[in-house]
Amino acid sequence: MKTAILGFGVVGSGAFEVLEKAGYEVKRVLDIRPHDELGDKLTANYDDILNDKEISVVAEAIGGLEPAHTFVVKALKAGKHVVSSNKHLICTYYEELHALALENGVTLRFTSSAGGGIPWLYNLKRSVRCDDIYKVMGIMNGTTNFILDAMISDGRDFDDVLSEAQRLGYAEANPSADIDGLDTARKTAISSSIAFNTIIKEENVDIFSLRFIKKADIDYITSKLNKTVRYLGFGVKSEGGASVFVEPALLDSDALESNVRKNNNMISLFGRDVGRLSFFGQGAGKYPTGNALAQDVIDILSGSTELSFAPEAINVDNATLERAYYVRTKADVSYDFFDTVEVIDGSKYITTKKITVSKMHAVAKEIRSLDADAFFAGIEG
Amino acid sequence: MKTAILGFGVVGSGAFEVLEKAGYEVKRVLDIRPHDELGDKLTANYDDILNDKEISVVAEAIGGLEPAHTFVVKALKAGKHVVSSNKHLICTYYEELHALALENGVTLRFTSSAGGGIPWLYNLKRSVRCDDIYKVMGIMNGTTNFILDAMISDGRDFDDVLSEAQRLGYAEANPSADIDGLDTARKTAISSSIAFNTIIKEENVDIFSLRFIKKADIDYITSKLNKTVRYLGFGVKSEGGASVFVEPALLDSDALESNVRKNNNMISLFGRDVGRLSFFGQGAGKYPTGNALAQDVIDILSGSTELSFAPEAINVDNATLERAYYVRTKADVSYDFFDTVEVIDGSKYITTKKITVSKMHAVAKEIRSLDADAFFAGIEG
Repeated sequence: MKTAILGFGVVGSGAFEVLEKAGYEVKRVLDIRPHDELGDKLTANYDDILNDKEISVVAEAIGGLEPAHTFVVKALKAGKHVVSSNKHLICTYYEELHALALENGVTLRFTSSAGGGIPWLYNLKRSVRCDDIYKVMGIMNGTTNFILDAMISDGRDFDDVLSEAQRLGYAEANPSADIDGLDTARKTAISSSIAFNTIIKEENVDIFSLRFIKKADIDYITSKLNKTVRYLGFGVKSEGGASVFVEPALLDSDALESNVRKNNNMISLFGRDVGRLSFFGQGAGKYPTGNALAQDVIDILSGSTELSFAPEAINVDNATLERAYYVRTKADVSYDFFDTVEVIDGSKYITTKKITVSKMHAVAKEIRSLDADAFFAGIEG
Repeated sequence: MKTAILGFGVVGSGAFEVLEKAGYEVKRVLDIRPHDELGDKLTANYDDILNDKEISVVAEAIGGLEPAHTFVVKALKAGKHVVSSNKHLICTYYEELHALALENGVTLRFTSSAGGGIPWLYNLKRSVRCDDIYKVMGIMNGTTNFILDAMISDGRDFDDVLSEAQRLGYAEANPSADIDGLDTARKTAISSSIAFNTIIKEENVDIFSLRFIKKADIDYITSKLNKTVRYLGFGVKSEGGASVFVEPALLDSDALESNVRKNNNMISLFGRDVGRLSFFGQGAGKYPTGNALAQDVIDILSGSTELSFAPEAINVDNATLERAYYVRTKADVSYDFFDTVEVIDGSKYITTKKITVSKMHAVAKEIRSLDADAFFAGIEG
């Protein structure tokens, strides 16, 4: 049993080094760019991998939907196990790819698609086997955690820290996927799908962007509310269904997440038997993520079988969970669920009573239409 | 493939419930006490399990060395996979039992022997396959964390909190194994053995007891040194070998461990590729630990193979690591490695320069011979 890696970028090259160093041969690497160090292993023709009977595991690290989707489908149909680090692919095609894997008697693994180097999805799936997982929650994006940590520690404003993050390579030139929450939403959808044994799509996830947070919010949250802020993805199962959302969240200073500094990640599951299990580590990077991709490959080479997957229909509806919120806005609005309202320098700083997630996200759209700079965050605990 | 559980105490009965609820049949349970709810599954005769060809996995939850050791040896020799939650057994007989497992082509798993419900040892072993793990560290004992957390939060003294912990069932009537560090030492020895692919025994572990800590220490550490205290096990690999020790440790308030409250555990590995990975959860209890034992069983039933184990000789020597220390004593002593010394109410509060762990533990014995109440802690970072 040998392995091929698709894509020799940051993650693919990291996984290549990890596997070779540990004595697992990577027979071929697919890339259209030249990589002299790969010698004969390099090919730009996917058929060289597809038709090679010695290659039983295909590790996809291309990213994006195409050609990754076509390549993965072909690998599964050819009876090859597939490992992927591609959250966009998994979030979009989870149901199809898993059905194909089952149909062809092979394994599909994607631990490195959420949490970078953290063995999160793998452990989550292991927990689901024999426990009722009713909640997943976590810091799943290093860029936004770096920004919040620097704003809180150094008293700086959002734009200033974002520029630094871009200079350091922690944030993209176009940072929207990170700071507007799509990256966290995809990871939350994948995590919730596994936790609740169902299919949750990125369009099911309500999102509050982080980009509207200001130094004034940090000051108010810290000194008046005695809380700290992190950017979290949530999946919460209740009697009525499941709520899945991404929000800035106000936490007590002794919460575990409050001490997650810089661009690190921490993701947790809550099981009826096992209680809370939390996993901390580096959420991105060549060697951490490469290691996570390699670990999935080695599991398959070591004979670990995938459990069968029969997704159940579940009512994904953010009206099934209530929580309290923090709102900062200049808009002249008042709702009956507002609890405390304080006006400072012309801005209202509001905490709300508990309302449903869906209601708050709907109201947030109304408020934002009046005040493009308004900021919204959930309040934990 | 069916399972038998040895011992129907807290952990054994928890694992029984978890397995049966998840659809994995437990065919027999060995216990000498009556358990009517088990019906025909209950036996007091181990031969009923040993001679049953349908039973391929034996889960040992008896605790202690005998008869657990005899039973486990017989199971391995009979070609049955073994899962154990018994840290004393694993710490004492790891080399023998692992060799027997290899010889008989079966798997030996013991995730639940350290960290309770946390999938710590399992993930550590998974990481060792393809990374160089150079450090393990963690809060591995819930009783001592409960005591420290209450002392720090409520300003109470050690004996007072210990009594409460005993009343709540968090501490044994004889609390020595917890507060004098043997429990943590065994879990640290097992963790270090796996991390460094060697055999480390409990007698290799230098220990500072927690029982000498006073409210006055908490006050000094908090207000003068601006740190917090946790009771940690450490395994650290360096060029010269490995240092393995258990000590109260002074941590910055933003360390992850500083926010581990009540009787929870958090254990971390440090790998060259993956960086720091930390695992948080409940370190004890019927369902958490039962879940961890059950998970090992299910892995085996799912075909996950154990990696081969060829322990390497390593120089286990606490002279291979230097760190700074905190000492509080009334003894009239002075050493050249003392850094700051402050006298309050007749006690010296001392911080040291960096010295080797072995030197400090030797000096601590000298100081304790003069002052039975002296307290020692390492300083992190």
